[in-house]
Amino acid sequence: MPKHIRDEALELHARNKGKLEIRSKLPLKTRRDLSIAYTPHVAEVSKEIAKNKLLAYKYTIKSNSVAIVTDGSAVLGLGNVGAYASIPVMEGKAILFKEFAGIDAFPIILKDFHDDFIDDVRNIEPIFGGIILEDIAAPKCFEVEEKLQDVGVPVMHDDQWGTAVVLLAGLINAARVVRKDFSSLKVVINGAGAAGIAIARVLTCYKMRSRLCRKVKDVVMCDSKGIIYPGRDHLNRYKEELLSVSNRRRIKGSLKEAMAGADVFIGVSVGGCVTMDMVRSMSKDPIIFAMANPTPEIMPDKARKAGAAVIGTGRSDFANQINNVLAFPGIFRGALDTRASVISDEMKFAAAYALADYVKEPTQKHIIPDPLDKKVVEAVAAAVAKAAIKSGCARII
Amino acid sequence: MPKHIRDEALELHARNKGKLEIRSKLPLKTRRDLSIAYTPHVAEVSKEIAKNKLLAYKYTIKSNSVAIVTDGSAVLGLGNVGAYASIPVMEGKAILFKEFAGIDAFPIILKDFHDDFIDDVRNIEPIFGGIILEDIAAPKCFEVEEKLQDVGVPVMHDDQWGTAVVLLAGLINAARVVRKDFSSLKVVINGAGAAGIAIARVLTCYKMRSRLCRKVKDVVMCDSKGIIYPGRDHLNRYKEELLSVSNRRRIKGSLKEAMAGADVFIGVSVGGCVTMDMVRSMSKDPIIFAMANPTPEIMPDKARKAGAAVIGTGRSDFANQINNVLAFPGIFRGALDTRASVISDEMKFAAAYALADYVKEPTQKHIIPDPLDKKVVEAVAAAVAKAAIKSGCARII
Repeated sequence: MPKHIRDEALELHARNKGKLEIRSKLPLKTRRDLSIAYTPHVAEVSKEIAKNKLLAYKYTIKSNSVAIVTDGSAVLGLGNVGAYASIPVMEGKAILFKEFAGIDAFPIILKDFHDDFIDDVRNIEPIFGGIILEDIAAPKCFEVEEKLQDVGVPVMHDDQWGTAVVLLAGLINAARVVRKDFSSLKVVINGAGAAGIAIARVLTCYKMRSRLCRKVKDVVMCDSKGIIYPGRDHLNRYKEELLSVSNRRRIKGSLKEAMAGADVFIGVSVGGCVTMDMVRSMSKDPIIFAMANPTPEIMPDKARKAGAAVIGTGRSDFANQINNVLAFPGIFRGALDTRASVISDEMKFAAAYALADYVKEPTQKHIIPDPLDKKVVEAVAAAVAKAAIKSGCARII
Repeated sequence: MPKHIRDEALELHARNKGKLEIRSKLPLKTRRDLSIAYTPHVAEVSKEIAKNKLLAYKYTIKSNSVAIVTDGSAVLGLGNVGAYASIPVMEGKAILFKEFAGIDAFPIILKDFHDDFIDDVRNIEPIFGGIILEDIAAPKCFEVEEKLQDVGVPVMHDDQWGTAVVLLAGLINAARVVRKDFSSLKVVINGAGAAGIAIARVLTCYKMRSRLCRKVKDVVMCDSKGIIYPGRDHLNRYKEELLSVSNRRRIKGSLKEAMAGADVFIGVSVGGCVTMDMVRSMSKDPIIFAMANPTPEIMPDKARKAGAAVIGTGRSDFANQINNVLAFPGIFRGALDTRASVISDEMKFAAAYALADYVKEPTQKHIIPDPLDKKVVEAVAAAVAKAAIKSGCARII
């Protein structure tokens, strides 16, 4: 990274003392303003909500607010940097929510990832209309998300579903570009953390309650120890469960063996782990998603030289950026607009298909919308809202 | 209350869906903006903080943020209306913080006041530079505030100290108006909840670690059962403790008996509990603080007819409004500016004296600054910052 961008990032954060601020939507100039926004007349609003707590959606920020919850245990590619170091990332997420979807998001940054983590999140729900879990290490993140589904407002772990939704959209369009049948794709996923597991579930329909799910024929997962197969060491419950729907050929070996003959490589792992030879060993017109940040599993120019037909990365300086910002603003906008109780699998698939459809004519260099295209959120939100209503999760229709 | 103000309050809250919003301080228009505010370059800021967590003050909102923590157990005069019904009040508090002190405050509204309450608050500390506790029922509020003093950022229960600070300032100036010696005042406090206990502590210097504290000669506390005396029924630990410094004459009976011959009545209780006869029974030129909301313990016109020399209430439509907004913005501004680790008693007294001094020539109708005077906060913040440095709580000097 050029020295000056690093300096600019630090300087800009220091000068502004962070990135987000709280503002009033009402004037507070006169005694009367004060008496309505605060005591004594705010009491009238409280009394109404005391009679029916759902009126919090009518009279307060709850109708438009999202908590960004993290413990800083898996921040970006940096790992477990802890709560304090995660603040700049969560502030960034908050301003993306506002900028892209008009959502008021505030970071809830938990100091300790103790056993009461789930109760803590449950306990801060009242002022929020939704909760996005962020940068929480696997496999803890799976359990946390699962247990929080009954909290009463939608809860989604973005590192799982944000990534999986955008990837799915990209893969659908990439298959169109290379004229391969989606269902027949042979896919290798490298990385079995939050994103890898969610991508595998989306591509195998494992525990996805949605009629929209379309299975891919052949999915093989790898982690840092190589191909995941039954009885291997270092498997957690989540990796093991997925073996009921993946690695049907029961192959063993390293990532290299997995990639031979595959149509698609999906990397949510570490930079530089894929060689040109590995790409060459894939089937004709291979699709490469090298999403490790900041250094992709293989750089796009190398992948292309080795024959890759479509290449996506996590980076903004290459084509086909697989960026969560394409998904989470629209997903939560749709969920808040319908006052959904959860973000159902139906809603996730609806978001992915809306994203894929948004690109009218996919090409090698354009399988996914531009992350800066602020109209994407409307398309995603509309599809998600529709799916919320269809799947019975909406509370406003 | 006139019907139309009630309607306006409801309508304004419904139209705006609450009062506060989250905004970005940085532009997010270009790919470069996005890469600096979020991935990948925000990682540089995270890495710096990972090395030294105090740098969160340099690079994030922590330097200017306050959590407004409540469980809705004692909201305004409404009682235990619960978490959801407290949201409008806490949003109001948040916009006051911004409007008066430029502080970014966000409500943390806890659903359950369970035993882990304190751990929950401890656990959400990382992004906040201070914590204000709000509308939490007594006596729980005392324990919560006490236990949270080591959390690493200043924690103050506003219903206790905000009220006590403004009241003290008002009382100092009221004594000047009636030309009575502050230390010789005979004071009755009616109400032994959060505010009453804190006022009693401030006037008796009980457990106040500050050289600035000036004792009042004679303080008698009453609660809903009448005068508090040793051995009486219905005493909690906090009421009992204060008997070591109050009711030295060991009188018994009702509020009426307490008020006979007193110089000062301080009501933080219920509307209408004080009669004109009770005011007439006080010493010459009595001072009345009738702070129950919305109906004062005695209406100002009645109190005046009964001989009261100085009258303060909690209401904006009468002179001498004892409003916490005169204290908490300046106290937290001063604490944040010096990165204080706590809000020490010295800082509280400094705030009270700054408020009293702000009124150059106190009169019957003007013992305390106007709550809408936005220059008050500077005077209070400067005094609090100075006291923070003097009392060794400041981390920036």
